Amino acid sequence: MAFGWIDEQAEQRRRAGLVRTLRPRPADSPLLDLASNDYLGLAHHPEVAEGAAGAARTWGGGSTGSRLVTGTTELHTELERELAGFCGFEAALVFSSGYAANLAAVTTLGPHGSLIVSDALNHASLIDGCRLARGATQVVGHADPDAVRKALGTHEGPAVAVSDTVFSVDGDAAPLAALAEACREHGAGLLVDDAHGLGVLGDGGRGAPYAAGLSGADDVVVTATLSKSLGSQGGVVLGPARVIDHLVNAARTFIFDTGLAPAAAGAALAALRLLRREPARAARAREVAAELHARLTAAGLEAVRPDAAVVSVRAPSPEQAVRWAGDCRTAGLAVGCFRPPSVPDGISRLRLTARADLSGAEIERAVRVIGKTRP
Amino acid sequence: MAFGWIDEQAEQRRRAGLVRTLRPRPADSPLLDLASNDYLGLAHHPEVAEGAAGAARTWGGGSTGSRLVTGTTELHTELERELAGFCGFEAALVFSSGYAANLAAVTTLGPHGSLIVSDALNHASLIDGCRLARGATQVVGHADPDAVRKALGTHEGPAVAVSDTVFSVDGDAAPLAALAEACREHGAGLLVDDAHGLGVLGDGGRGAPYAAGLSGADDVVVTATLSKSLGSQGGVVLGPARVIDHLVNAARTFIFDTGLAPAAAGAALAALRLLRREPARAARAREVAAELHARLTAAGLEAVRPDAAVVSVRAPSPEQAVRWAGDCRTAGLAVGCFRPPSVPDGISRLRLTARADLSGAEIERAVRVIGKTRP
Repeated sequence: MAFGWIDEQAEQRRRAGLVRTLRPRPADSPLLDLASNDYLGLAHHPEVAEGAAGAARTWGGGSTGSRLVTGTTELHTELERELAGFCGFEAALVFSSGYAANLAAVTTLGPHGSLIVSDALNHASLIDGCRLARGATQVVGHADPDAVRKALGTHEGPAVAVSDTVFSVDGDAAPLAALAEACREHGAGLLVDDAHGLGVLGDGGRGAPYAAGLSGADDVVVTATLSKSLGSQGGVVLGPARVIDHLVNAARTFIFDTGLAPAAAGAALAALRLLRREPARAARAREVAAELHARLTAAGLEAVRPDAAVVSVRAPSPEQAVRWAGDCRTAGLAVGCFRPPSVPDGISRLRLTARADLSGAEIERAVRVIGKTRP
Repeated sequence: MAFGWIDEQAEQRRRAGLVRTLRPRPADSPLLDLASNDYLGLAHHPEVAEGAAGAARTWGGGSTGSRLVTGTTELHTELERELAGFCGFEAALVFSSGYAANLAAVTTLGPHGSLIVSDALNHASLIDGCRLARGATQVVGHADPDAVRKALGTHEGPAVAVSDTVFSVDGDAAPLAALAEACREHGAGLLVDDAHGLGVLGDGGRGAPYAAGLSGADDVVVTATLSKSLGSQGGVVLGPARVIDHLVNAARTFIFDTGLAPAAAGAALAALRLLRREPARAARAREVAAELHARLTAAGLEAVRPDAAVVSVRAPSPEQAVRWAGDCRTAGLAVGCFRPPSVPDGISRLRLTARADLSGAEIERAVRVIGKTRP
């Protein structure tokens, strides 16, 4: 049978304890959420929901076409202008997902004849971007500016170094200033994915590149997502106007995709305005992360010191990680559970999100449950 | 300067007359729209907008995480169940875009050691899927089941043939029954993208595979989009439950992407229910296409006979296509303008959408404008 070979792979996964199943959640889930990427607690904020609802009423359920045909509304342009202004870049371009934004940025900034230097622990979407790009990719050790410098030194012609700003799995930050310095020594561009930095790091949540003094530089391009701190859906590329124009003309995931739905643009715009009005949300997310880490460590758990709002706790094995996360769930706590192949180093973890709107009592309860259920 | 090489490419595009710019539309555009992919005119239907608005209020602005963590709501499951039921497949999986759905389907069904046989005029997202897949890709002539048969005959092991059901540029349909027969002779799977068929072809808009008697077959997988006939955003993969389970476990654009926003799921669900209640919309889109084609041909224009709701009119050159589309716009008519590199054969066209809700007077006006402005 045509797809019979799939059953063998399914059997292998079952034997390895790596079967994934979907667990639909109800609208009124009683679980305490430390599993989502809703870092600022804005996905359920009434203003954000109303931003989505109002945009759908005004602009319709969908954008109706490619951004180059009918899919660019004035709402998209407004969102792009405000995102660029907030993060300190000349221009911005919004995509249907962060994945699409990363594919676009890497493929268009890594053309034929170029070199792409990629951190070994980069997100899957950056890796897929490297695989789709016509340039040559060289993978270098994690968070290692000297390795980037060395790789760039081997190449003549256009080159770009690519890195997450905050790595999703362990929540550690990239050495952005040192990476930029390495790139500048070689006239190379720097492309960073601020998915887990926007809304959390930098003054009022302007992001990790802003915090590193790289915003608005003519050799820096940033991607980010509207689906984490901004509680919506979509991705964005921020950078010099020449780069954004280049993407409009050359990025396949821009040209051949339907534009972001108006509701998603409206929700992201509402969240962005809320964050501008309440900049303390960003610092609060970092405080919650620091408190979570301190309490988990005090309880004898192996937690990575967080650079943003992700707190990662190591588990002894994939099976025990799954059981641990399941026991937390039974006790009313939702935590992320990262296992192979989602973790590049093969180490399974619980992954906790330090939402800005967690109360002290909720943090205490979360740490108690995690400690009590440890394998 | 790091990104200085971009300026040379921009200059080349300018010289070739291929510069693309975004044209933001207002909410109350006075243009008659024959440019979008809103085939059934549902993007602006109050029930669809309300589907988005209600979902955002109930479920929040975003899905908050990967579908495997917190990003699967009961709304996603409901949408997947109804899409599968409507199209006649065992199971369905929803993605943030049709692009992401195609990358997922091609990469997971074309693993290492497999053969992917791909139509020469397939959509960019299928082509990128082939490039990302670990299997070997063989590109065959357009709409040529014998070429598919021949290619499959050269390979031992898993194989899949990949095709659009309706090709976006010329609006012509693939020979689905013959393709399925060629695949079955070799025990290969058939993967088709019904982006331009769903809502237009098949009984009540159930799609091209349904019309070809392929729905629910254990060797057929269908992708489609929620952003065209269903007036929302997102993509879907439909197929046997074993294939959908495989995607949940192996598709990178599923595992590493944020789940579709609730508003988009809600809008698509509302549109689907509307289509079930008013199945004549599908036939009306086909009627409008036939009428557009007949009138354009009678006016001496070179239009391709439409198999679905896309009517393609050839233009003498990219520059003249742009001027023609611009003149239509000045006369109050929005039409699509496809130029290289969006057209695989290098021929520029006007591309017209036969929306089901176009009136006779609107069709007449559109044809008059297109005829009067021809180069």
